[in-house]
Amino acid sequence: MPIVHIQMIEGRSVEQKRQLAEAITRALVDIAKTAPEAVNIVIDDYPRTNWAKAGKLMSEQ
Amino acid sequence: MPIVHIQMIEGRSVEQKRQLAEAITRALVDIAKTAPEAVNIVIDDYPRTNWAKAGKLMSEQ
Amino acid sequence: MPIVHIQMIEGRSVEQKRQLAEAITRALVDIAKTAPEAVNIVIDDYPRTNWAKAGKLMSEQ
Amino acid sequence: MPIVHIQMIEGRSVEQKRQLAEAITRALVDIAKTAPEAVNIVIDDYPRTNWAKAGKLMSEQ
Amino acid sequence: MPIVHIQMIEGRSVEQKRQLAEAITRALVDIAKTAPEAVNIVIDDYPRTNWAKAGKLMSEQ
Amino acid sequence: MPIVHIQMIEGRSVEQKRQLAEAITRALVDIAKTAPEAVNIVIDDYPRTNWAKAGKLMSEQ
Repeated sequence: MPIVHIQMIEGRSVEQKRQLAEAITRALVDIAKTAPEAVNIVIDDYPRTNWAKAGKLMSEQ
Repeated sequence: MPIVHIQMIEGRSVEQKRQLAEAITRALVDIAKTAPEAVNIVIDDYPRTNWAKAGKLMSEQ
Repeated sequence: MPIVHIQMIEGRSVEQKRQLAEAITRALVDIAKTAPEAVNIVIDDYPRTNWAKAGKLMSEQ
Repeated sequence: MPIVHIQMIEGRSVEQKRQLAEAITRALVDIAKTAPEAVNIVIDDYPRTNWAKAGKLMSEQ
Repeated sequence: MPIVHIQMIEGRSVEQKRQLAEAITRALVDIAKTAPEAVNIVIDDYPRTNWAKAGKLMSEQ
Repeated sequence: MPIVHIQMIEGRSVEQKRQLAEAITRALVDIAKTAPEAVNIVIDDYPRTNWAKAGKLMSEQ
């Protein structure tokens, strides 16, 4: 049942998302003892104009 | 005041979103006794490369 | 696959949550043509000190 | 450490996002006594077809 | 219409939340030109065992 | 910068959360090439009355 929501700056490839989904699902199965088919992972890619750190947009850093 | 956040795979039409908004708002009004104008619903459409189930991206299933 | 995240002020009963889950899942099945077992709904109940509208906490309104 | 997630209708300019990031980070630093570099703000812009209020999509209001 | 979701480590007082709600709403009204009554802010307080940074729970740092 | 938000049924121990934080951060560092100190993970534990699958609360399944 776990739901994992990942928010990151855009630019990761589909291959990187594929590997992340596999590794994070395996961690939940091994550690949290959930069934693999119960794990949903959703990924939000943000443009640098939509993420700020320390009060500044990433597009300005 | 309720906020409803729906995450789903992209591809639903505006007409389907219109009907979902109407049906879910009605459920909140009837069951949770909220005023209709207090209900906000936001919908996130995800490409199949950004959603994984059972450790595999939806684009690979 | 749809994930529905409901945020509301605390105080709804388990029976109300049961009816909301049923009604919202039915709406997604009927309108968005998803399988019922693919629908996850999570509910966050907030104390009135943790929700603000129009710049004022609900506990002060 | 605070994470601030802002959901709004699309259409705000980068300059408005820049000012929001600055003002909200300052509020967290001044009021919640967090370090500025610990504040992450992410902004989701929604099309009017993906936001409903009072049971109607914003695109129909 | 903006929805602001704040996630932070528990321990802030109601007075701090009151001031945050006021300051963040004012920023949205002044900068994003929204009506104050359209702004919803929800705050999630997390125990230190439920937040990790750099791979370590905050309760261990 | 990645933010990972995990929603699961309550009952996992602090030790399980510690291991999840470590494994998921390592996956993000190795695969998404992020710095470890840029990774924030927040965990929401839900009672079975606040999670529904297939239209039924987990407390009834």
